[in-house]
Amino acid sequence: MGQLIVQKYGGSSVADPEKIKSVARRVAESAAKGHRMVVVVSAMGKTTDALVALVDAVTPAPDPREVDMVLATGEQVTIGLLAMALQAMGRPACSFTGPQVGMVTDGVHTRARIRHITAERIHAALDAGKIVVVAGFQGMTESGDVTTLGRGGSDLTGVALAAALKADVCEIFTDVDGVYTADPNVVPEARKLARVSYDEMLEMAALGAKVLQARSVEFAKKFAVPVHVRSTFKPDPGTLVTREDHSMEDVVVTGITHDRGQAKLSILRVPDRPGIASLVFGGLAKQNIVVDMIVQNIGRDGSTDISFTLPRGDRQRAETVLAAVAKEIGADGVAADDRIAKVSIVGVGMRSHSGVAARVFSTLSKENINIQMISTSEIAVSCVIEDKYAELAVRALHDAFELGKEPAA
Amino acid sequence: MGQLIVQKYGGSSVADPEKIKSVARRVAESAAKGHRMVVVVSAMGKTTDALVALVDAVTPAPDPREVDMVLATGEQVTIGLLAMALQAMGRPACSFTGPQVGMVTDGVHTRARIRHITAERIHAALDAGKIVVVAGFQGMTESGDVTTLGRGGSDLTGVALAAALKADVCEIFTDVDGVYTADPNVVPEARKLARVSYDEMLEMAALGAKVLQARSVEFAKKFAVPVHVRSTFKPDPGTLVTREDHSMEDVVVTGITHDRGQAKLSILRVPDRPGIASLVFGGLAKQNIVVDMIVQNIGRDGSTDISFTLPRGDRQRAETVLAAVAKEIGADGVAADDRIAKVSIVGVGMRSHSGVAARVFSTLSKENINIQMISTSEIAVSCVIEDKYAELAVRALHDAFELGKEPAA
Repeated sequence: MGQLIVQKYGGSSVADPEKIKSVARRVAESAAKGHRMVVVVSAMGKTTDALVALVDAVTPAPDPREVDMVLATGEQVTIGLLAMALQAMGRPACSFTGPQVGMVTDGVHTRARIRHITAERIHAALDAGKIVVVAGFQGMTESGDVTTLGRGGSDLTGVALAAALKADVCEIFTDVDGVYTADPNVVPEARKLARVSYDEMLEMAALGAKVLQARSVEFAKKFAVPVHVRSTFKPDPGTLVTREDHSMEDVVVTGITHDRGQAKLSILRVPDRPGIASLVFGGLAKQNIVVDMIVQNIGRDGSTDISFTLPRGDRQRAETVLAAVAKEIGADGVAADDRIAKVSIVGVGMRSHSGVAARVFSTLSKENINIQMISTSEIAVSCVIEDKYAELAVRALHDAFELGKEPAA
Repeated sequence: MGQLIVQKYGGSSVADPEKIKSVARRVAESAAKGHRMVVVVSAMGKTTDALVALVDAVTPAPDPREVDMVLATGEQVTIGLLAMALQAMGRPACSFTGPQVGMVTDGVHTRARIRHITAERIHAALDAGKIVVVAGFQGMTESGDVTTLGRGGSDLTGVALAAALKADVCEIFTDVDGVYTADPNVVPEARKLARVSYDEMLEMAALGAKVLQARSVEFAKKFAVPVHVRSTFKPDPGTLVTREDHSMEDVVVTGITHDRGQAKLSILRVPDRPGIASLVFGGLAKQNIVVDMIVQNIGRDGSTDISFTLPRGDRQRAETVLAAVAKEIGADGVAADDRIAKVSIVGVGMRSHSGVAARVFSTLSKENINIQMISTSEIAVSCVIEDKYAELAVRALHDAFELGKEPAA
């Protein structure tokens, strides 16, 4: 009787009526193979931006509850249009909003977290032989207020529904056709990966690969939902994000990511005494500034430099906070650098292979690229370098780890 | 502790963020007087038309359930924006969709009828000191599907909420500032009426005055909701639509309406035998064509002409139906005339005054205007005349019944 498949189509895939009709054809094809289909969609094209602009024109400090009321309409338009497009192709279909399928969240408007999903109406509609079309990005509180899930929310809806329905797979249709060993715009010989583990995908998402948001991958990992990232515009299979298996460990490095959206801040000659780091990062946390890599080295004179990276857009706010902190703790001052890039190699195989970091450093050294900061995790090594070397570093590492070659089966 | 007031603002009153802010100021003024406020709004400007165009671009024969899913988003955008505009003025406010306030309808999508309203969340929000903003035009079925109420649906939402909440008044804000003795564009000396009865308003709505849809007036009459029709853009009081009282009967004629949107069809020389009218109008009803005035005269030769009026947009479909019927019953054929106008005088005082119809006929006769069809009700007399005389007829009647003069108190 076929599989139960959840498909998710993003805003660019449903940007206009013609694209909605071609999504409908794609869904109908899967249904024709005997699969039961649940389709999650985003708002059409730039609709959400247009709604945000309306909100901005009304007030600079809107109530998040009311923002959600406005934003949730974008997806609601798409579901109605897609359901009628499917029906026009002779496929019984039925649309539901997030609240209608019992997507219950907490009450943190504009970035709500999913609590549970009842999905009763989905089961009933599937049992009635219908293709079910669900609005991504939205849910409701226990008391029935409309909420939205924040950035990447529609992916999360797809994964969460797949988990709740125990679907065989969650297919995420997007404008790239899978996860690559590196950004193909930078490395022409980059290779599409057939499979990556949840942990690798998590590192890659956090490290700058924009295919899937980390939040959705975490959710998929937690509930062991196989996620198939694939292209809306091509029929080929994409990349399956799935549980780690033994064969994955044979490959030391799976992929290379780079992130050019960060800035580096340093507090210079900080007195080396307990509680300093807490003062520095506590002040940033209060301003909701999320820092990424942190490096601290104790100098010989009992003072130290603390450096960290953060999203470039937060740099100015952070500098203001830090200037005050630097004064308070008697540091020499604050230095900022926007012209940095973070390059990372990722692979679950690193757990059982030594010498990976050393090979990264020697590769960069051969190209005369100076490493400003280093951080490592169990399955990743990241280096901050001068921005102008970003592409060179990615290409050199891709080459050094032979990622362009298909691994032995 | 002030009154409980329901206000309704139409699409042109909330067409852009600036207009929404000025509606918010208007609402805030009423709240500042100590009134408890429930505000019903339509979709912004031409939003509903744009949504209909999207639907049309997807399929020519959409599922009405999915059409409602799409259309209901228009009002949902407005409520969020208005609620945040009110909050920005320091007024606690909260928005609700039709489903959220328990606006339960039947399942006839795109023209659902209201069954009952729970309004629990409205009471709770009012008790919490909030201005409540509700999406007009929409509701839900018992099983939670989104429905819309059809044309004039937002007025109906306002009136129905006022009835359910036992509000002191339902204020309908619109781009005209009240109900006039005649269209001021036609009769410069037309006078704004301070009060009209539900029945008069019903006749006027049905007869072409576009201020309020007949459906909303019927609902207001049934539940004795006082409806105040007034201008969004001017502070002056408008017209109160209310229960008939004795003073109203002293005025014989309240107003004059005209409708230029109709056409006249005649079936010529119909054999005069039982069942003919049923054949003619049964055929039209099957095509969902609503006819208005019907006139039949038995001629001397045992045959008769049947004439009726209908919305001009339905004329061609009706002609096709009638051509077949005419053949079947042995009539001579069908004649159509688009160049007609219907002019009517309305007033509850007619019930107790004789000679009104006679004065209408003599007034038109003096102007050499030929009357093609006549129909009368308890409180109205309508005449179909050649279209080119429409303005002349309205002015002559307005003058003959001295409607420009303020009635004696």
